[in-house]
Formats: sequence, structure tokens, C-alpha cells
Amino acid sequence: MFEVAELEQTVSTEEFQQQVPRLRERLLEAQARLQTAGFPVIMLFAGVDGAGKGETANLLSEWLDPHWIVTHAFGAPTAEEQERPEFWRYWRDLPPKGYLGIFLSAWYSEPLLLRAFEEISSAELDERLDKIVHFERTLVDDGALLLKFWMHLGKDQQEQRLTTLSADPTSSWRVTDRDWKHWRMYDKFAHAAEQMIMRTSTGEAPWTIVEGLDARFRSLKVGTALLGAIESRLDDEATAKKKASSGRKKKKKQDGRDAAKAVRPPTPKTVLSRLDLGSSLAKQQYREELEVLQARLNLLHRGALERRRSTIMAFEGWDAAGKGGAIRRITAALDARHCHVIMIGAPTDEELAHHYLWRFWRHLPRAGRVTIFDRSWYGRVLVERVEGFATQKEWQRAYAEINEFERELVEHGMVVMKFWIHISKREQTRRFKAREKTAYKRWKLTAEDWRNREHWNDYELAVNDMIERTSTTIAPWTLVEGDDKRFARVKVLRTVCERLEQALGMPVERELQLASGVQ
Amino acid sequence: MFEVAELEQTVSTEEFQQQVPRLRERLLEAQARLQTAGFPVIMLFAGVDGAGKGETANLLSEWLDPHWIVTHAFGAPTAEEQERPEFWRYWRDLPPKGYLGIFLSAWYSEPLLLRAFEEISSAELDERLDKIVHFERTLVDDGALLLKFWMHLGKDQQEQRLTTLSADPTSSWRVTDRDWKHWRMYDKFAHAAEQMIMRTSTGEAPWTIVEGLDARFRSLKVGTALLGAIESRLDDEATAKKKASSGRKKKKKQDGRDAAKAVRPPTPKTVLSRLDLGSSLAKQQYREELEVLQARLNLLHRGALERRRSTIMAFEGWDAAGKGGAIRRITAALDARHCHVIMIGAPTDEELAHHYLWRFWRHLPRAGRVTIFDRSWYGRVLVERVEGFATQKEWQRAYAEINEFERELVEHGMVVMKFWIHISKREQTRRFKAREKTAYKRWKLTAEDWRNREHWNDYELAVNDMIERTSTTIAPWTLVEGDDKRFARVKVLRTVCERLEQALGMPVERELQLASGVQ
Repeated sequence: MFEVAELEQTVSTEEFQQQVPRLRERLLEAQARLQTAGFPVIMLFAGVDGAGKGETANLLSEWLDPHWIVTHAFGAPTAEEQERPEFWRYWRDLPPKGYLGIFLSAWYSEPLLLRAFEEISSAELDERLDKIVHFERTLVDDGALLLKFWMHLGKDQQEQRLTTLSADPTSSWRVTDRDWKHWRMYDKFAHAAEQMIMRTSTGEAPWTIVEGLDARFRSLKVGTALLGAIESRLDDEATAKKKASSGRKKKKKQDGRDAAKAVRPPTPKTVLSRLDLGSSLAKQQYREELEVLQARLNLLHRGALERRRSTIMAFEGWDAAGKGGAIRRITAALDARHCHVIMIGAPTDEELAHHYLWRFWRHLPRAGRVTIFDRSWYGRVLVERVEGFATQKEWQRAYAEINEFERELVEHGMVVMKFWIHISKREQTRRFKAREKTAYKRWKLTAEDWRNREHWNDYELAVNDMIERTSTTIAPWTLVEGDDKRFARVKVLRTVCERLEQALGMPVERELQLASGVQ
Repeated sequence: MFEVAELEQTVSTEEFQQQVPRLRERLLEAQARLQTAGFPVIMLFAGVDGAGKGETANLLSEWLDPHWIVTHAFGAPTAEEQERPEFWRYWRDLPPKGYLGIFLSAWYSEPLLLRAFEEISSAELDERLDKIVHFERTLVDDGALLLKFWMHLGKDQQEQRLTTLSADPTSSWRVTDRDWKHWRMYDKFAHAAEQMIMRTSTGEAPWTIVEGLDARFRSLKVGTALLGAIESRLDDEATAKKKASSGRKKKKKQDGRDAAKAVRPPTPKTVLSRLDLGSSLAKQQYREELEVLQARLNLLHRGALERRRSTIMAFEGWDAAGKGGAIRRITAALDARHCHVIMIGAPTDEELAHHYLWRFWRHLPRAGRVTIFDRSWYGRVLVERVEGFATQKEWQRAYAEINEFERELVEHGMVVMKFWIHISKREQTRRFKAREKTAYKRWKLTAEDWRNREHWNDYELAVNDMIERTSTTIAPWTLVEGDDKRFARVKVLRTVCERLEQALGMPVERELQLASGVQ
């Protein structure tokens, strides 16, 4: 879940200095409109120590009109507070309509700490998180605009940050023993945080994960997100009013207004930019590895049947990325009676008449079997998002729906694997052209494939968001460097074997090595 | 929670025969419109054995066009089903758009049974219920119209029903040993069902509780509820479309259309009709009891302070029902430093700028103290509902919000008491007139009080719904017969004492009796 927030995103001083004055001006305008709009804004910051929760909150108070902002940090409950239910102090401090309330950690702090220190079980954490969901929903139902930011640092990044702060006498006071203690427990915190974010990223109050390494990046990211959320809510209400009073008007008028003051969120590196597309595998080595991996997979497949553990694989990737080829290298090692490949194209009439997840539910495998989806439920947040087939509300809600769907599968004992096969735009061109030339491959290429390329950047952003929001410990994404087909197929096969070995507790690799005399 | 569904509601044969043809005609019309409307209807029946779940489902299939209905009952999961996650079989059977799917018990069956047999704890039940809430929400978010009916019988009613069925050779096969076994466990089932209904009565998928004793009553109640829900959804969509295409139109046009075919839900007895307003207490007896009860309360109050258990009381009732007088008889026994009476009138500006529950959260007492609310958070589902200050969505959602609010209080250890003081309309007239005549009481009577009387029936219905949906084991309502003030005050005081004794584990009554030599 946090890979995307460890890409070392930065914003240059120039860009920052160019953007900030406009951003501040627009924030102040939005804040002025907010006062008569009749709803409160609640911002919540949680995250890794040192990732800039407090600094960002302070910066916002500086950028905005402080009369209408209140920031709340919470320590251990006071005697007064202990005498009331847990949420009493948060209720008390809720901002009135027209105000912006900034909450630091707040209701997320205790559950996260308790879980990281293993004082509560994962199920108990879920229970507490559900209470939070109730609470937040009550606020949003009443009209509050609730924005939640998880300020993130990778483990190494946090160490580096704490070290830097400690080294400087003017900031060393910021680093406490507690910070280092928590750093040593980083993995436990990250694990608990993932569960927390997954469960409380609801349609009405989603988390935004912000990489906290570069102060300019995080400030701009949070600032533009806040501005965007307030403006779009104010515009929605204005449009609704206008519609009610004078019928349909031309849309998008609001957008034109501020063209001169356009504010851009920082251009992010995506998680795909990290992949080394130069990875390749020589033919001979590919043949050898393929053979060993398929033997290994076959053993595991039989083991899974015996143990009645079923497997679900979802393949996504650019057109011509080689999904079909990778899938065939898997099915070659499986018993065809116990394995289904489902091509997901445009939905049938019957499927259209149901919930979008229904077509995936119906194809779930029986115990021990394998279902491979060539394209999957992720269409909702990829093609449907980019092409506008799903509304923004629908695809935003889909992340939580998908996480819940996969959780049900995993809790039932199914192994869930997800592959994104990535190729460069150049490689795609090459393959498209090759398809045009080869008669038996020509049917694979349609005008739509060329059209899709026009949205490459939108898709890349959608992929990035998808990985950030749905790559979980229980059902992680595997990103596959696909420019070299041999490399990609071997990586996919190896991942499948490793995930199965782990799930089944069957160290097949070792057995095979012994059998072939390799040590 | 179930008091309201044990009032022995009936519908006469004449009324039934008059209503049903119209109801069927309108249901068939609605069903025809539904086919092009693009959403499925999901009806779920759960409830007490013998309360008519299956019969009602069958009747609906008879009344409606069976082509577009599918009824699903579920036994223990088959092997096929066990190999998939719990909800797989429900997903599989979801109706497509335009169809009506009827589910019998379905996803509620197993959690309820497990809890009644104490195979899972109350917290584990909550966890399973939250999964159901997720599931239902996913369906509703996608547009499904979800209606849930709890078919109810009181314990005696169920016994009677099972006996009747057993006695008739044509129906005795319907009664199994299992039914009798469950009947003996009635209280456990009722307790689990209450928790279930409270937790899963969400704004988007509320339960309707239906008394199942009289077949005509329950059929008419379910039938009219189904019709109302489908028609209002279809009308909403039609209005939204019209609005979008041609600006604001005169509303309520739809309603006129069917005037000739008006269908009424059965006129319910309300829970208030059960109260014996003739209850009274002679002056001398009143004085004696008052003295003893106040002494008892004072002891308990001191015990609560020691034990740091706080108490919250909410008083609701008709204008001039005597709330103030009853409250003064309580405060007379309490230490004024540790007791607050909060009058809830029109909200202040500051309160208006917050969530409607905020003004109650802020007044929660410290440990051991008492807060008495003269009118309360129930205003949302009483005056705000009847006078239209809250939208239908808002007050419908409020039942769940209020239950959650009270649950947080009780889980924190607070004792929550709720009193509805009931008087007859005639008695109210008498008191109003008396107030007009007595100078020092005249300020109490406003023009508004007279106006409120015009909505008496609406209020009575709102009170009935309120009791049905918020009288829970952890925070039950006490209905007080108020035509005789002395009787009412003593009943309130006695209830307060009994609830406190129970909560504190302090059998003060016994102590006092011993002290005064009474056995």
C-alpha cells in the first residue's frame, strides 16, 4: 500500500515559489466562500513520525485566515476526558459550519498504537475502526467535508529524517527516544496502518497518502488537495442551487473563471517509473528456468488441490503487454480440468444488469481450483475511470469495495495474486506494428488500441492510484517489467510459485533442487 | 424494541377485501414501471418462526407478476457453497435490474442462530453484522432498493401460534421439534435479534418490524410498504429526470394521479394506546411513597458518586404532560452540585452550526454525576420530523445515530434512562385551560402549544416509531401514564431507583425496609 509513497517525490524551489502565491490566493478565496456555505471542513493528519504532520498543519494556518481555523492535538486523555466516552473530546472540538478544524492523529492515534504494540488483536482493531467509520459517517451525513491525510515515510527515509533532525542543534529537540523506539517498530506500525487505511478509506472519507520526505512536495500536495476539495464542494452546491432555480445551465463555467490562477498539484512520479524496463533474459536461460518453474508450479498445483486451497489471479497491463502469453505459460503447468481462464471484455447484458462485482463473484473457483482473470474487477478503476464509464463517485468508492471483496476471498482461504505487466510506449508501438504485419496476429489489433494510447498518461495515473489503494499485504500487486517477454513470463511464474509455496507451506523449490542434485 | 410489535394489531376482513384489489393493481403497475427503471428490488424477510415469513413471500408472488420475482431460501451451505466465501451464494442469487428478489432469512440466519446458541460472543456478532452492513451498502450504493422486514411475534403469541398450527392436522407438519426448541429459547433469540436490528438498521437499509399475528395485518403492512418504497423511488427518479430536462416543475403531481386508487397501510394501534390512563394514586399514599423513594434515590445517588457511575435521563412527552414536575421530584433527592438539568429548546446559533448531537455530547456528565435533559436528542424524530424541520432522510437516519450514541454512553458505563410521559388529549385541554386561568402558570402556555395539538396523530405515530426503533435492552424507554400527576411522578422515581440499583448492584430497597422495620 505504501510503495507509491516512497518514490522520493520532490518539487523544485522554482515550481514551489511559482505555485504557492496562487494557491494561497485561491485558498483564501475558497475560505471566504466557505463561511456562508453552511458546512464545516475537517482535516485529519496521521502518519509516520517525522513525515510532517505538524509542519503541514502549521503551514496551512499560515496560508489561510487563522480566524476560521482551529488545530487540535490530543495527548493521553485527561481525567475530565476519561470520565466520558472515547469520542467525547472529538465531538467537543468539532468545528462549526464555515470553519476549518485540523485534527492531529486524534481518533486514529490510540487504535494504531495499541495494535502496533500488539495490545489488541487484528479483529479488535477492526472493531475500533468500525466505530471510527460510524463516527466519520455521522459527520459526513450531516454535511461535513472530511479530508484525511496519511503522511508517509519509508523506513530508511524515516531513519534518515530522524538522523538529520538530531544532528542539527536547532531541531534535535524534536527527536525523542520515543521516536526511535517507534522507528525500530516500523514494520508493525506500517502493518497496522495498512489495515487502518484499508478499513477506513470509505467513499465518503477516503485517505490521501502523502509522501512526507520533501516539504515542498507534501505542502503543495496537501494544499492543492484541500483547495480542490473545498472548491469542488462549493461549486457542486452552487450548481445544485442554480439548477433548482433556473434549469440546466452550461456546465464548466466555474472552471474558466480562474484560468489565470490555475494551480497544479505537483506532478508525481508514478510507481511505474521505477521499473527497470531494460530487464531481459537470454533465450537459453529462459528455457531452462521456464521448465523448472513449470515443474514446480505443477507440484504446487497438485498440493493446492489436495489441501483444497484455491487461487485467483488477476492480470492487468497495457494493450499488447503480453498478458495472454504469460497466462499460457501458467496454464501449461496446470490441470485443465481444474483451471479456468476468464477473459473480461465488455460485460454481457446479464452482467450489465447486475452489480459490477457480480461477474467476478460468479466465477470464483471451487476448493483447490484456479481461476485466472485476463483483465479483472480493476477495470472499474482503470478503463471505466479513464473513459468516464464510471462516475467519479463510483470509481472512488470502488477501491474500498475491491479491498473488501479481496478480503473476503483471502479470509475464506483463497490465494489472491494480481499482476500489472508494464511496457514502455515505444515497445507498445513496436508490437502494434508487428501485429499489423503478421496476418495471424492482426485480429488482435483494433482501432481502439491506438485510441487508448492517447490516454496513456491518464492510465498511468490511474494505475498508480490503483496500486497505492489496493496493494495490500493480503493481496499485493506484482509489477512486472514487460518489455522483454521472456523476463516477464519468468517473473510471473516465479511469483506464482513463491506465493503458492508460502500459502501452502510447501517448500517445493528445495525439493526440486534436491531431486535434481543442485544444492 | 419489540413492544410495538406485540400490540395484537388486526385488520378486518372488510378492510382487507376493500384494500387488496387496489393494492394488487398498483403493485402490478409499479412492477411494470420497474422493468425499465434500471434498479433491482431486494426484499428480505427474517423473524420469529410462525410469524409468516414464508406465507408473506408466497402471497407477494401471487399478487405480483411472478415472471419478475425470484424467491430464495437457504439451508445449511452445500459443499459447492462451502468452497466459496460466505456471501458467494447471495451474490449469485442477486436479482438483475428490474427484478424483485425475495430472500428468506439469508445472510441474517447464521449470525442470529450462532448468537442465540451462544456460540459466538456479542462482539463477534457485531463483527459479522458489520460485514452485512458492508454487503448491503455495496448493493445500495449500486442502486438496489433494499427492504428488510422483521416478522415478529411475542413469546406468548408464538406459543399460541405453534399450538394452533399443531392442533390442525392440515398444518401440524409445519411445526417441528426445532420450532419448539427455539421457542423455549425465545428470550435469547429476541436479545440477539435486537442487537442485530439495531446494528443493521442503517439509513440506506432500515428494518421494518411487522407484527405477524394477524395474516391480514401483516400482508397489508408489507404490501403497502413495498408499494410505497417502489413508487417513491420511481417518482424520485422521474422527478430528477424532469428537473434535469426542463427546470423546476410543480411538485406532487404524481400524487394526484392515483387518488381514485388510494391504498392505505393498515391503521396501527400505537404503543400508547395500551397505557391505562386511569392509573392514579391517592394523596396520602403518594406522600408516603414519595418520601421513601426519595430517600432511596439519595442513597443510590451517593453510591453512584462513590462508584463513579454517571446517569443520563431524557424526558419527553406531550406539552403539559408534567415533565418538569417529575424532574423536580428527582432533583429534590439529589445533590445540586452533582446534577444538571438541561432544558432543550430551540438550538442556539452555536448549536445550529454543529451536528444536532453536538449539544448533547457537550453536556455529558462527569463520573458519578447526573444530567437530566428536559426534552432531548429525540427532538430529531419527534418535533423535527412532524414539523418538517428535518428531511425524511435525516430523521430516518437518526434512529441509528441515536442508538449508536446511547451505545457509546452505555459502553462507557453511563446509565441511560428515557421517559415518555403520556397524557390524553382531553387531559391536555384541561391543563391548558387551567394554565390560562392561573397567572403564574400562564407564561408556560404559548400559541404554539395549541398549534402542536393539531398534529397529535402525527406525533403519536412518531412516538410509536421512536419507541419501536430506540427502545433497547441497554437503554429502554419507560412509558409513563401521566393523566394522574402523582401516579406519574412515583412511577418515574421508582423506575430511576430500580435502574440505579440494578446498575450499581446496590439493593437499597431491602436495606431501607430493614431499617424501617418493614419486611
